[in-house]
Order: sequence, then C-alpha cells, then structure tokens
Amino acid sequence: MSVKTMEDLFVATLKDIYYAEKQILKALPGMVSKADNAKLKKALETHKKETEGQVDRLEKVFKLIGVPARGKKCDAIEGIIDEAKEHMDEIKDERVLDAGIISSAQAVEHYEICRYGTLIEWANDLGHSDAAKLLAESLKEERHADTLLTEIARGSVNRDAEAA
Amino acid sequence: MSVKTMEDLFVATLKDIYYAEKQILKALPGMVSKADNAKLKKALETHKKETEGQVDRLEKVFKLIGVPARGKKCDAIEGIIDEAKEHMDEIKDERVLDAGIISSAQAVEHYEICRYGTLIEWANDLGHSDAAKLLAESLKEERHADTLLTEIARGSVNRDAEAA
Repeated sequence: MSVKTMEDLFVATLKDIYYAEKQILKALPGMVSKADNAKLKKALETHKKETEGQVDRLEKVFKLIGVPARGKKCDAIEGIIDEAKEHMDEIKDERVLDAGIISSAQAVEHYEICRYGTLIEWANDLGHSDAAKLLAESLKEERHADTLLTEIARGSVNRDAEAA
Repeated sequence: MSVKTMEDLFVATLKDIYYAEKQILKALPGMVSKADNAKLKKALETHKKETEGQVDRLEKVFKLIGVPARGKKCDAIEGIIDEAKEHMDEIKDERVLDAGIISSAQAVEHYEICRYGTLIEWANDLGHSDAAKLLAESLKEERHADTLLTEIARGSVNRDAEAA
C-alpha cells in the first residue's frame, strides 16, 4: 500500500484499528473464560459488547468517508495479543492470572486509546467532523475500560494475587 | 518460564519492558533519520537519551530486587516496531511521513506508559517502594514524551502534512 497524503494515512490507520478491533473480539472470550474474579469477568464481557459496537462504529466511519470497510493486518495488535496469550499460559495460579489478564487487557486498551486519539486529530484536521465524533465515542469507552480495570486491580485482584 | 506468584509476574514484566526499551533504543535512530521536521527530530533524539536512562534505571530496579538484569522477548513491542517500520516504508511524502512517525512513536509511548503504570502498582503492593520510585521517574518521562509529540503534531506537522 502506498501512502501519499494525510487522507491515505487516515484510511490506512482506520484499516489498522478495524483489523485490531476484530482481533480483540476474537481474543476476549479466551480472557473472559480464564478470568476468575467476578468483577473482572463482568468487565471483560461488557467490553466485548462495547468492542462489537466499536466495529460497527468503524464501519459507519468508512461509509462516511466513502471507503469500503476493510482491515489491514496490524502487527502491533497481533504482538500484544500473542503476548497476552503467552502470559496466560505461563501463570500457574488463578489469582495471579487475574492480575496478568488485567495487565494484558490494559496493554490492548492503551494501543486503542493511542490509535483513536491520533485518528480523531486527523479526522478533524481533514474536515471529517462526523467521523471524529464517532471515533471520540469509542475513545471514551476505551478510556473508561482502562480506568475500570485499574479500579478492579486495586479493589481486590492485586491483594488476592499477593496471597498466592 | 513459570509464573506462580505476584513477585514472579513482577519480574517477568520487568524483563518484558527491559527487552522493549532495548528494542526501542535500536529503532529510534531510524526514526530520527527519517524525520524531516526539526522539532520532531530533536524530540526523538532527546527521547533516545531518555531511553538510555530508562535502561539504566531498570538495571537499578533489577539490582534492588536481587535479580540479574535480563530481557525476555516481548512480542508486543516487536509488533509495534515492525508496524512503525512498515508505515515508514509505505509513506511517500516526507511531510506525511512526519505525521506517521509521530503516530508510531506514540504507539510505542503508550505501550511503555501502560507497562510502567502496572509495574509501579505491583512494586508498591510488593513492598518494593524504591523500585516503584525509579519506575515512576520513567513513567513521567514517557508521559512527557507523548504529550510533546501531540504538541509537535498540532503545532506544525499535521498542518504541513495536509498540504501534501
């Protein structure tokens, strides 16, 4: 793919996060099933539903800018998810595993927070204000998911894990 | 590697970010040489020096907890850096390339912000308060680097890139 203009770069990054969201959708059920703490399990389930909405929202953005919704292989999210799976396999205690799942999920959230932040700036600069508004809704959800995971870690998961 | 306790998970994640910082050190010169905007070039050069300091700081943390400083292959940072290189190869205009470099560098920063945030929480919980203080210094630098990149993007890079 050849990127010549900011519009090209915007579309390329949109395809990157579209691919990433779909990979996250595939990875989340594995994290839900391995999570032990009830609040963590629920937060991950809620985030799966949010992620489905984020995929729909990205399809609306593609429509708004007149480009077919198509993903582009995103090495970053593949690496982040591979590492999450590896960590889940290595951890032998379920309480420590919950702390590890939160850490991995926050790495995913931060990748998305970063990409949505960039896309919103570019969308506004390029005059795609309706697209920017949709992307901002997803960014808000990602930030909320990240904060919620920190609260769950501080509330019980980390304390329980230290007893392992 | 088998992770049974929170101390094990803390050490495993320390090895992950130690490996990541060293990979970032290798990748930064390529980004500096490809950057065109003077402020961006300078910010990346400054961050290379900061990254060297962060590697030293991690070695101090390893020493504090009595574990040999050793990295552990980190798929996440490999993916983030591979993607950054791919983007740099795809972008054909130097002004758009600057915007792309900022986007890639912020993906790196966010990965580090996330990992340092987690490590600080765990270090404090595990009673490694001196380690937590050192890690907090690096987190502060990463957050500052991220904010500075946003300012450079808003200040000139994105506007110049739109003229491409």
